[in-house]
Amino acid sequence: MTLTVLTAVLDGVRIGIRCEDGRIAALGPTVTAEPSDHMVDAGGAPVVAPLLNGHTHAAMTLFRGSGGERPLMPWLEEKIWPVEAKLTDEDVYWGARLACAEMIRGGTTRFWDMYWHPEATARAVADAGIAATIGAPLFDHDGNAEGMKESALRSLDQLSELGPAVRPALAPHSIYTVSEGSLRWIAELSAEREVPVHIHLSETEREVEDCVAAHGLRPAAYLDRLGLLGERTILAHGVWLDQEELELVAMRGSTVISNPVANMKLAVGGVFPYPAARAAGVAVGLGTDGAGSNDSLDLLADLKLFALAQKHAAADPAAIAAGEAWEIATGARAPLLGAGKPLTVGAPADFLLLNPDSPALGIGELASDLVYAASGAEVDTVVVGGELLMRGGELPGMNEIVARAAERARRLGL
Amino acid sequence: MTLTVLTAVLDGVRIGIRCEDGRIAALGPTVTAEPSDHMVDAGGAPVVAPLLNGHTHAAMTLFRGSGGERPLMPWLEEKIWPVEAKLTDEDVYWGARLACAEMIRGGTTRFWDMYWHPEATARAVADAGIAATIGAPLFDHDGNAEGMKESALRSLDQLSELGPAVRPALAPHSIYTVSEGSLRWIAELSAEREVPVHIHLSETEREVEDCVAAHGLRPAAYLDRLGLLGERTILAHGVWLDQEELELVAMRGSTVISNPVANMKLAVGGVFPYPAARAAGVAVGLGTDGAGSNDSLDLLADLKLFALAQKHAAADPAAIAAGEAWEIATGARAPLLGAGKPLTVGAPADFLLLNPDSPALGIGELASDLVYAASGAEVDTVVVGGELLMRGGELPGMNEIVARAAERARRLGL
Repeated sequence: MTLTVLTAVLDGVRIGIRCEDGRIAALGPTVTAEPSDHMVDAGGAPVVAPLLNGHTHAAMTLFRGSGGERPLMPWLEEKIWPVEAKLTDEDVYWGARLACAEMIRGGTTRFWDMYWHPEATARAVADAGIAATIGAPLFDHDGNAEGMKESALRSLDQLSELGPAVRPALAPHSIYTVSEGSLRWIAELSAEREVPVHIHLSETEREVEDCVAAHGLRPAAYLDRLGLLGERTILAHGVWLDQEELELVAMRGSTVISNPVANMKLAVGGVFPYPAARAAGVAVGLGTDGAGSNDSLDLLADLKLFALAQKHAAADPAAIAAGEAWEIATGARAPLLGAGKPLTVGAPADFLLLNPDSPALGIGELASDLVYAASGAEVDTVVVGGELLMRGGELPGMNEIVARAAERARRLGL
Repeated sequence: MTLTVLTAVLDGVRIGIRCEDGRIAALGPTVTAEPSDHMVDAGGAPVVAPLLNGHTHAAMTLFRGSGGERPLMPWLEEKIWPVEAKLTDEDVYWGARLACAEMIRGGTTRFWDMYWHPEATARAVADAGIAATIGAPLFDHDGNAEGMKESALRSLDQLSELGPAVRPALAPHSIYTVSEGSLRWIAELSAEREVPVHIHLSETEREVEDCVAAHGLRPAAYLDRLGLLGERTILAHGVWLDQEELELVAMRGSTVISNPVANMKLAVGGVFPYPAARAAGVAVGLGTDGAGSNDSLDLLADLKLFALAQKHAAADPAAIAAGEAWEIATGARAPLLGAGKPLTVGAPADFLLLNPDSPALGIGELASDLVYAASGAEVDTVVVGGELLMRGGELPGMNEIVARAAERARRLGL
C-alpha cells in the first residue's frame, strides 16, 4: 500500500512525502494523498534521517545491569563469558528482538552487530522490519583456529541467505583474542567474498601496550600489516589511536565507531580523539555497544554524551558542532555503514517523524536540539522502506517482547 | 480527595499507597481502595522517590539552543546577558512554566533556582504544583552595591509571602560578580533571616586563579573568610575544589551541586571530584543547570552522565555505585536541599511510578537500570502532596505551555 505523510517539516519547509514500493515517489509542498493511500498527518513534525548504530551486541539486552562496577576484562571473564557459553538460539532471538524494539523506539533502523548465534539475531532483525550487518564473533585464543574458521564460513553462508535486510560480516573479536594467522586468513576471506570486517580495536591502553610488546606495532599498524585495514573494515572504539594511526586509518579508508558510553562506564580512561580523526579524514560513526555495558540502546542519548565528551576532552566547547554530530549518528560520515541517502525522490523511504509537541524541540535550532535537548523519546514515527514501524511513540508488541526477553534472562540466571 | 495507588512495587514488594491530606496515610501489601477514592492501578510499576534538581535557572528554557559552541564567559557576555536585560515577568513566567513541565515530565518535583524576576518563577512553580527554593541573582560588578542590596531585600520579602511551595534564597551570582563587602552583607542577612545562600563556585579554573590572585585564597577558603560557607549554603559546580577546600566545605556543612552536563558543554575542562568529596564527607546533590547550557532538564539523563563522568575521570568503573548515584539525584545525600523522606506512613505523599512495561527496567537491578538504562521518559506518574500531577507519561497542558514559551522566545529574538 502507498503511504503518504502530510504536513511534515523538512529543513523548515512544510512538505508531503509519498512512499511507493519502498522508495520515495514524491516529496514536496504540493504532495497530496489519494483516497486509497495510508495517510499520516505529521502535524508539523520535523522529518529527519533515521539513526545508525555502528557497533552493538544486540542480544546483550539480556545482560543489562549485570556488569556491576567492573572494568572490561573482569567483566568479560567473570560475568559475561560464563553465561554466554550457555546461550541458545531462543535466548539470542529474544534478546535481539528487545534490542531491535528499543532501537526502533529511539529512531535507529540499521545497526552493526557482533554476537553469538548470529542467525538468531538475523531472524530478529527481519521480524522487526529493520536492517543489520551481522557477524559471528570469531575467537581462537583457545587455540582452536580450525573451529573458528569453520564457524566463520558457516555463519557467512547462513547469513548470506537471509534476504536484503541482513548483510553478513566477519567479526574477529579483537587482536588479543584472535591469532595473527587467523587474522590474515580473515583478511583474505573478506577480500575474496567482498564482506566487511567488524573488529574491536584500541579499546584499552593495555591492548595497545600488549600489541606493541608482542608485535612491535600499535594496533592499527598491526592490522595494516595483516591486510585487515581497508575500506571494508570498521574498528569499534579506537580510543587510543594516535596521530600516526589515525592517518593510516584515513589513508586505508577504514571506519572508526566511537562508543562513548561504554568507554566511560568501563572506565577505559580515554576518549576517542575525534577532532584529530576529523582532521586526518577518518570516516566516523557512533555506536551504543551492547546493553551490558551502556545500558541503553538510545543512540540519540549517546550522541549528546559523544559531543559532550569531545568538548570536555578537548577543553573546547567548539570541538564539535551540532550538525556534524548529528551526521555522525545517522551514518552520513561513513559510507561503509550503509546509511540511507538524503530524503529525495527515488531514495529508500526511510525516515523519522519527531514529536511535534515536544518541549525539547520547540525553541532552538533543530540540529542543536536534536543533539543536546532530545532523546529517543522524541521519536514519534518510524518509517522503513515505506512501512510504518511505529506511530505515536508506541511500538506495537513491546510488552510481549520485554516479557519474553526478561523470561530468557531469568532462565540464564541474570 | 483521597488518592489510593494499588499494585505498585516498592523494594520488590507489591503494595498499595493511600494518600490523605498531602501525606501517606497507609502503605503496604494490604492497603485497599475505598469506593470514593481516586484509585490508580500502578500495574506492577516500581514506586521511587522524586528527583531533586539542585541547581538551575528555570526560565532559561527560552535560551535553549542559543549558546552555539561558546565557552562560559563569551556565552554569558555575547548571548545571555544582552537578552536577559530585556526580559519581562511574562517571559520568565512562561520560560519557568516550560521548565516545570519538563521537570515534572521527567520526575523532578523540587528544584533550586537562581534567576531574574524570581516572583514570576515562583508563580510558575505554584501553578505547576511543585516546589522550589528561589533566589534573585545578585550582582554588583557594575558598582551598584546599594541597588543589589535593595533587590535582595525586596525579593526576599516578595518570595516569603508566596506559600509553602516556594522558599526564598539569597543567590549571589559568584565571587567574581559580587564584591567582598556585598558577600559579607549577604552572609549576615542569611544568618539573620535564616535563609539559604545559593552561589556558583569554582566553575572554571580561571575563577580559581583570579581568586587566588585577588585574595590570596582559593574560592572556598575565600567564602569561608567572608562567613559565607555554612550549613545554609549551596555551591553550584565545585569543579576545581581541591582536597583542602573539600575538607573545609565538609567541616562547614555546605552542599555542593554537580552540574556535569553544563560543565562538559561549556568545556570547563574538569570534573567535580566526587570520590574525594565523598571521602571528605561533603553533602552532594545534582543539578541540570539552565537549559541554555544543557539543553535538557531531564535530571535522570544527567544522572547517567554524572556517574559516567566520575568513572571516566577516576579511570575506575567502581568510582561510584548505582545506588549511591540515585540517592544523589533524589537529594537524599544533602539535607539542606529539602528532599522528601523515604516512603513511610506520615511522610509527604511525593513519589513517582515508573513505566511498568518499560524495556529499560525489566531485566537488571532497579538502581542500575534507573541510573544507566532509564531516562525521564520512563516516568509514568508523578504524585506531589497526594496530588496526581501526571499520569500515563503525558503532562496535561504541555502543548499550550510549549507554544507560549516558544512565542516568548521568538519575541526576544532567540
